[in-house]
Amino acid sequence: MGKVPERAQWSGNFGEWFHRVISEVPIYDIRYPVKGTGVWTPYGFKIRKEVVEVIREELLKRGHEEVLFPLLIPEYMLKKEAEHIRNFEEQVFWVTHGGTTPLDVKLALRPTSETAIYPMFQLWINAYSDLPVKIFQIVNVFRYETKATKPMIRVREVSTFKEAHTAHATREEAEEQVREGVEIYSRIFDSLGIPYVKSVRPDWDKFPGAEYSVAFDTVMPDGRVLQIGTVHFLGQGFSKAFDIKYMKADGNYEYVWQTCYGISERVIAALISVHGDDHGLVLPSRVAPVQVVVIPIVYKGREEDILRTCREVVGELEKAGLRVKLDDRKEETPGSKYFTWELKGAPVRVEVGPRDLDKGTAVLVRRDSLEKLTVERARLVEETKTLLERIDSDIKDRAKRWLDERVVRKESLEEAKKLLETQGGIVELRWCGNTGCGQDLETKLDARVLGWPYGDACSPEGPCVNCGSKANMIIRVGRSY
Amino acid sequence: MGKVPERAQWSGNFGEWFHRVISEVPIYDIRYPVKGTGVWTPYGFKIRKEVVEVIREELLKRGHEEVLFPLLIPEYMLKKEAEHIRNFEEQVFWVTHGGTTPLDVKLALRPTSETAIYPMFQLWINAYSDLPVKIFQIVNVFRYETKATKPMIRVREVSTFKEAHTAHATREEAEEQVREGVEIYSRIFDSLGIPYVKSVRPDWDKFPGAEYSVAFDTVMPDGRVLQIGTVHFLGQGFSKAFDIKYMKADGNYEYVWQTCYGISERVIAALISVHGDDHGLVLPSRVAPVQVVVIPIVYKGREEDILRTCREVVGELEKAGLRVKLDDRKEETPGSKYFTWELKGAPVRVEVGPRDLDKGTAVLVRRDSLEKLTVERARLVEETKTLLERIDSDIKDRAKRWLDERVVRKESLEEAKKLLETQGGIVELRWCGNTGCGQDLETKLDARVLGWPYGDACSPEGPCVNCGSKANMIIRVGRSY
Repeated sequence: MGKVPERAQWSGNFGEWFHRVISEVPIYDIRYPVKGTGVWTPYGFKIRKEVVEVIREELLKRGHEEVLFPLLIPEYMLKKEAEHIRNFEEQVFWVTHGGTTPLDVKLALRPTSETAIYPMFQLWINAYSDLPVKIFQIVNVFRYETKATKPMIRVREVSTFKEAHTAHATREEAEEQVREGVEIYSRIFDSLGIPYVKSVRPDWDKFPGAEYSVAFDTVMPDGRVLQIGTVHFLGQGFSKAFDIKYMKADGNYEYVWQTCYGISERVIAALISVHGDDHGLVLPSRVAPVQVVVIPIVYKGREEDILRTCREVVGELEKAGLRVKLDDRKEETPGSKYFTWELKGAPVRVEVGPRDLDKGTAVLVRRDSLEKLTVERARLVEETKTLLERIDSDIKDRAKRWLDERVVRKESLEEAKKLLETQGGIVELRWCGNTGCGQDLETKLDARVLGWPYGDACSPEGPCVNCGSKANMIIRVGRSY
Repeated sequence: MGKVPERAQWSGNFGEWFHRVISEVPIYDIRYPVKGTGVWTPYGFKIRKEVVEVIREELLKRGHEEVLFPLLIPEYMLKKEAEHIRNFEEQVFWVTHGGTTPLDVKLALRPTSETAIYPMFQLWINAYSDLPVKIFQIVNVFRYETKATKPMIRVREVSTFKEAHTAHATREEAEEQVREGVEIYSRIFDSLGIPYVKSVRPDWDKFPGAEYSVAFDTVMPDGRVLQIGTVHFLGQGFSKAFDIKYMKADGNYEYVWQTCYGISERVIAALISVHGDDHGLVLPSRVAPVQVVVIPIVYKGREEDILRTCREVVGELEKAGLRVKLDDRKEETPGSKYFTWELKGAPVRVEVGPRDLDKGTAVLVRRDSLEKLTVERARLVEETKTLLERIDSDIKDRAKRWLDERVVRKESLEEAKKLLETQGGIVELRWCGNTGCGQDLETKLDARVLGWPYGDACSPEGPCVNCGSKANMIIRVGRSY
C-alpha cells in the first residue's frame, strides 16, 4: 500500500449530493416544519456525539471547564455592548409573551452567549486569584437568517454550538489564550481529518465587539469556502461594558482581558463533505458510529458455520475496543448491505464467505478506496486496526492535498476572478491593507476577503492587485457560504 | 461496621439549606437575571453530567436511540392535540419576532416535545417493520410558571429534560413499554440511591393527552413530596391527532400506540436533598465529581515525604479507575480543606500525616457518617473501593428507611391532616374512587392526591375516609412542590 488511493469517485452536483447523503443515511431530517431547523436522527446523533466528544476532550485537556447557561437573554443585557447588538439586532428571535401575558422585558434567544455569560463573570471575578477563567458550553443558538438557509451550514437553530469564554489578568495572557484556542481548534480539525487555512479576518468582518478574529476556513467540494471555527480576541470591550474587574496586587482595579471561540455543527457539514464520495459517507474511525461492519456471505448449507464465524469475529473486534456491527439481516443480499454501509460510511467492511472458512481467511474492504484485502483469520483484529489507522491517515492526507491545490497565489484580479469562477477555492493576492480598497475588491470579485495568513504575515514585493499602491500583505479571498 | 450509621447531622430549615448548598458548593447560580433560570457551574455541571450518563446508559441498554429535535414548535402544531394545548396554553413562551420582523407563525419554546416529535413520526413510520420506535432526547424545555419559582424544582427553563417517546403496533406492546419505562426509571433512581413510591396519578392529574400516568414521587427533608419522573400511556390520542399510521399485514392501516416518559433536573434536586446533611453534599460515588480527596497533613520537616506519598496514593487510586483530587493548597489548613470537601460531598477523604508515614498507614474518612478508619497503606486502594461501595449502600438504605417512615397509612382525614401538618410525607387513605370526592379531599387536606400504588392496587376493607361510601382503593396524598 504505497501511495494514498484516490477517492472512489466524485461527480455531480455537490448541493444535491449533500442533501442526498444527509437524507438517506439519514443524518439530519430537514422536513421539520420550521425553516432553517432540522432533526438529528439516531445515526446522525451518534456522529454528532463523537464529534462533540473530540471537541470536549481537547478543551478539558487544556483546563477548560464545562458549564451551562440559560437560553434567554433580557433585552437590556443584549444591548450592553454597542457593536455587538448593532450586528445581532436584526438576527435575534424575540420571546415577547408568556402564555397570553406580554412580558415586561423582551427575552432574546441567545444568538451567542457573551451577553448571558459576562454578567455572571462580573459576579464571579473579584480578585487576581479568580483568574484565569476558562469555560465552555455546548448549546443551541439562534439566528433569524433572512438569506436562503442550508442544512447544518446556514440555519436558524444552530443545534450544536460550542462556545468557550475566557478572562485574564493581562492583555498578554489573553493573547496567549488566543494562540491556545487556535492550537486546540487545529487539533480538533486534525482529529477529524478536516483541512483548513487560518486567517486573521479583516477589520470589517471581525466578530462584533472583538479587537480581532482568527478564522478557520475549509473549501467544500463545490469550491465554496466554509468558515468552520473562529477565535476572537475581545480585549476589554466587553469587560468595560459589563464591568468585569479584578483587584490587582497594588489594590487598584483592572478590567479583565477576554477571548472567546466557537465551533458549530458546520464542522460536521465539513466532515461529511471533505471526505465523502458518490457512494456516500466516508468517516474517520474516531467518529464513525460503526467502525467495522461484518457481513456474512451466506451459501446454502454453510449458513451456520459462516454466521458463527462472523459472530466470533464481531466478539474479537469488540474486545479490541472497536464499534462493530454484524449485519445478519436475512432479507437483504450482500450487495444491498454493501450499499447500505458504504452510504453510512463504516470505514472497514469484513466479509466472511465459504471460501474464507476453507482457507482460514477473511476479506477486508476499505470504505475510502473500496480496495479489498484478504487477511489470515488469525490476524484479523490486528490487520483491521492497522487498516483503520491507514484509512484515517489516507483520508486526511487526501483532503489536505485537495485543499492545498485550492489555495492558489494569483497576480491579478482577472486571474483571481477566473479561478473563483471555475475551480473556486481560495485565492491569495497582494493587497495594500486599505479597507476601502478591500471592500472594492470584494465587490469586483464577488467574493469575501477571508483575511491574511494567521501567524504568517509577510510583506510581498509588488503592488496591490486592486488599487496598484504598494502592497503590504497577502490576503485570501474566496466565495463563501 | 454493623448497622447503617446515621447522617452526621440534620437541622434547620430545608429551604435555606438547599439554597446554601447550591450556592456555596456551588452547583447552580440563581443570580442569572431571568426569573426561574440558573447557571450550572463547573462543579454542578459535573454532577449533572454524571446523572445524565446514568439516565442515558439505562435507556441505551434497553434499545432506545438518542436524537435531537428543534426547540421551536409552530403554533398550529402545538394545538393539534386538544387536551395537550388546553393544559399548556398559559404556560408557553412565544417567539413572535425575528429581528424587528413579526413572524407569520408564532413559535413556541417547547414545553415538552410531543408536538415537535410526532409530526416526524408521521413521516418515519409507514410499515409494521418500522415499529417499535424508541427514542429519547436530553434538552431544555420551557414553562411560563406563574407561581413562585424554586431552583431546579419549579423553573421556567428546565435545563435538563430527558424525554423518551415510543410508538408501537398494539396496545399491549405499548403497555408493556410503560412497564419497561417504569423499570428503567426504578433502576436510575436506585443507582442514585433516591427512594421513591410509584403511583398511578388520578384522572384529573394525568399528563395532558395521556390515558394514564405513572409517577415517581420522593419526599424532601421538609416533608414535601417531589415528583421526580413520570411514565405516560398515550394510547392513540396523539397518533390520531398527528395521523401516525402503519400498514398491518392485512393491508389495513392502524394508528400507532404511544408512550412517553420524562425526567428532569428535579432528580438532581432530589439527589442533593435526600442524602445531604449540615456539612453539605453527600453524593453516591457513581455521580460524585471527586470520589476520593487526598489531603496531606503536613508537618514541618516532613513536607516532601508526605506530599510524595500523597501523590503515590493519588496515582494508585486513579489507576484503579477512581476520580481523585489531591488538595495540596499551601495556603489552606487541613481543617479548611475538610470543610470544603465535606461541602462538596467527596464520598471518601484520605488523610496522610507523619504518623501514617511512620506506621505505614493512612486514614480514610467517610463523608456520610464522618467516621474515621485507619488502614494499612498497602491495602489502601482495596479498602477505599470497599468503603465506597459500603457508603453507597448505606446512604441508599438510610434514605429509603427515612422515606419508608414517611409513607403512613391513616384511618381518618383528621389524622391525615395532622400528619401532613407535622411530619409531612405521604399519607395512604381508603378512598371510594370518585373524582368529586377526591378533589374535595384535596381541598380539605390542602394536599395533592398522588394516586394509587402502581402495580399494587388493593380493595381495602372499610369506608372512604372522606365521603363514607365503600372504599375501593388506597390512595396516596401529600403536600407537593
